[in-house]
Amino acid sequence: MGAANQQERLSTHEQRCWFLAGLIEGEGSLCVSIKEHAPSRFGYLVDPEFFIYQHKRRRGLLELATSVFDTGRITPKSGNEDVLVFSIVSRRLIIARVLPFYERYMAFSCKKRDFQLFREIVIAMEEKRHRDPHELVAIVEKAYQMNMEGKQRKRPIGEVIERILRDYTPNPCAQRGEDIVRS
Amino acid sequence: MGAANQQERLSTHEQRCWFLAGLIEGEGSLCVSIKEHAPSRFGYLVDPEFFIYQHKRRRGLLELATSVFDTGRITPKSGNEDVLVFSIVSRRLIIARVLPFYERYMAFSCKKRDFQLFREIVIAMEEKRHRDPHELVAIVEKAYQMNMEGKQRKRPIGEVIERILRDYTPNPCAQRGEDIVRS
Repeated sequence: MGAANQQERLSTHEQRCWFLAGLIEGEGSLCVSIKEHAPSRFGYLVDPEFFIYQHKRRRGLLELATSVFDTGRITPKSGNEDVLVFSIVSRRLIIARVLPFYERYMAFSCKKRDFQLFREIVIAMEEKRHRDPHELVAIVEKAYQMNMEGKQRKRPIGEVIERILRDYTPNPCAQRGEDIVRS
Repeated sequence: MGAANQQERLSTHEQRCWFLAGLIEGEGSLCVSIKEHAPSRFGYLVDPEFFIYQHKRRRGLLELATSVFDTGRITPKSGNEDVLVFSIVSRRLIIARVLPFYERYMAFSCKKRDFQLFREIVIAMEEKRHRDPHELVAIVEKAYQMNMEGKQRKRPIGEVIERILRDYTPNPCAQRGEDIVRS
């Protein structure tokens, strides 16, 4: 293949990436789900996730995303089978594919603050900081600042933080082997 | 300015155009409004229009559109002040700015059929073909094929076509100067 063809190929790839970035600006979502999960260390599972939503008539756009990210699943949206969801939920793949994409192609985005928070959370978790309750609280606080200040969250942030710190605080009765009587 | 700077500028412009194209794929809309308008030749005004919708928090994206198209208005959406609408409704500007943008940058779009119909309608109107009732009917039929087969239309297509052709059909009584009695 000649140099001109090589250039053309690179150029088409770049076009696809910038186009996909614009689509993601409208239809994509970075979010950090916080789910109650009793067996987890502090009662919650915290998961950074990347989604793109699209009507099933335009599945081709999600296939474009699969091709650009070289990963991702396409599944029907729960509760609305007309909508498809492209998702990357593995932290390893988020670090390897999603963060570099955002850093390079979301240059014109109006959601850069959300991306910065998401990035800080992913990196903190990669460094296992969420295993410390106070660091986990910091992660939850950042997650609640994302996506219009956490307006879509079911639980008030105070409830989540209280639950995280409650399990952490050493209980003097338990330490002495006494029964706990809750009023 | 050196050649390198010129190249850099062109490149950034291209990035903005491809990014905007992706945004338009999700949040943009080509439509042909068909409004009842008694003084018009066949009872309807037919207007090709281009819109991009965005939450007012992301007005910057619509300003990017204004900059790329070098035209367009940004106004609050009627009935929902939290949403802004970028619009180009002048046929001259649609021909000069919107059609060439779509031809070049919507290469990965899943809505190419809508664009083709829109383009055919705009060109037909530019050639004044809508002044002939049968050509106007052809335009209306194309408009109703757009955007999920006209699902969002208020009026059944039959009603529109009947109204266009009704006024056109020479009335033999009227031609003879007789009164028309409608049952």
